[in-house]
Amino acid sequence: MRELYHEQLDDILVELERMTRTVSTAVRRSTNALLTTDLGLAEEVIGADSQLDATGEMVEEKVFVLIARQAPVADELRMLVAALRMVADLERMGDLAAHVAKIARLRYPLPAIPVDLEFLIEDMGEVARRMVDQAGDVIHSRDVAAAQEIASTDDEMDKLRSNQFRLMMDASWPHGVEAAVDLALLGRYYERIADHAVSMARRVIFLVTGEMPLAQ
Amino acid sequence: MRELYHEQLDDILVELERMTRTVSTAVRRSTNALLTTDLGLAEEVIGADSQLDATGEMVEEKVFVLIARQAPVADELRMLVAALRMVADLERMGDLAAHVAKIARLRYPLPAIPVDLEFLIEDMGEVARRMVDQAGDVIHSRDVAAAQEIASTDDEMDKLRSNQFRLMMDASWPHGVEAAVDLALLGRYYERIADHAVSMARRVIFLVTGEMPLAQ
Repeated sequence: MRELYHEQLDDILVELERMTRTVSTAVRRSTNALLTTDLGLAEEVIGADSQLDATGEMVEEKVFVLIARQAPVADELRMLVAALRMVADLERMGDLAAHVAKIARLRYPLPAIPVDLEFLIEDMGEVARRMVDQAGDVIHSRDVAAAQEIASTDDEMDKLRSNQFRLMMDASWPHGVEAAVDLALLGRYYERIADHAVSMARRVIFLVTGEMPLAQ
Repeated sequence: MRELYHEQLDDILVELERMTRTVSTAVRRSTNALLTTDLGLAEEVIGADSQLDATGEMVEEKVFVLIARQAPVADELRMLVAALRMVADLERMGDLAAHVAKIARLRYPLPAIPVDLEFLIEDMGEVARRMVDQAGDVIHSRDVAAAQEIASTDDEMDKLRSNQFRLMMDASWPHGVEAAVDLALLGRYYERIADHAVSMARRVIFLVTGEMPLAQ
């Protein structure tokens, strides 16, 4: 009975890691859809999001049943409560990847991103995807140093976003209002994906050390 | 013992309602800070957010202790898990109100909003604040019909946001890129506050009826 219970606890971590991989794929594919003006790919990312939500609900229900049936001790309960928060993070990250794809769909058949600004989206998409992957690794390894590294990757995202604002606010911005608004919102979506990866990493640190790292 | 326990459960709902009032005030004040170019008020809203986060952590800890000590039955456990999600919603809504105030601070001493677009922000701020208040009422009353009404108020927010995009994307937009980017992000923040209010209402419906209403 206890053995099965510990298998079920592990199983939840495995599910969380798997959801993280799904989100990473969604971030990569939505970025590609934007950069290659690929409507089919954008639609696929948008359609796949409901599958992630369904997985999230299933994991939540498993957590709920474990808490209800097993009256977990403090450490295990902390892990299960953290898992609920991480499921919420992951569902939200999936939504944000779908938002990126929706901008690609909205502007199709035109590209949403001016050719000379593609590097901005490429970089933000790449940093966001890397942070999601790192969060997945950290759920698996429970490696505190690796979890802390995610916060430093987030500094890269902040720099990219400042750089993006600097370009848009320049008086010589040649791309008009629509491109600026799209870029501002896309930047916000990638930044939020990164924030959720940081938040997941902080929860892993808390589970391992018992202390919540200070917010950035 | 059981009586104290039920008092503690009620106490958590009271705390959630109180947090909702704090968020409502933050939304109103941040909108005022934007519209009256009031740096002091913007700073106050930004500074007050850490207090909301501290309250949120305190409520989370209370929920955690109740689950750990009382091994709540299914309905009570559902309520407590929903409370954790609502705390997360409320903390996030507070962050978003602070983001609104940060745009007022960033543009100070200039107004962030062109005079002839103030009505847009006024309307979005008002609808967001009303939805937050409604969410607080619903936590208190557990009134399913009132909870469903929040979703219909959210349609107002969607219309305001479409209207805002229509104005910004018009070729004759006279306010330049900076104002458009600020407005796009502000619109996003208000929209997200509204989304969280809807999400809280849906959780109340679930607690009362046992069925999760379909996502919008």
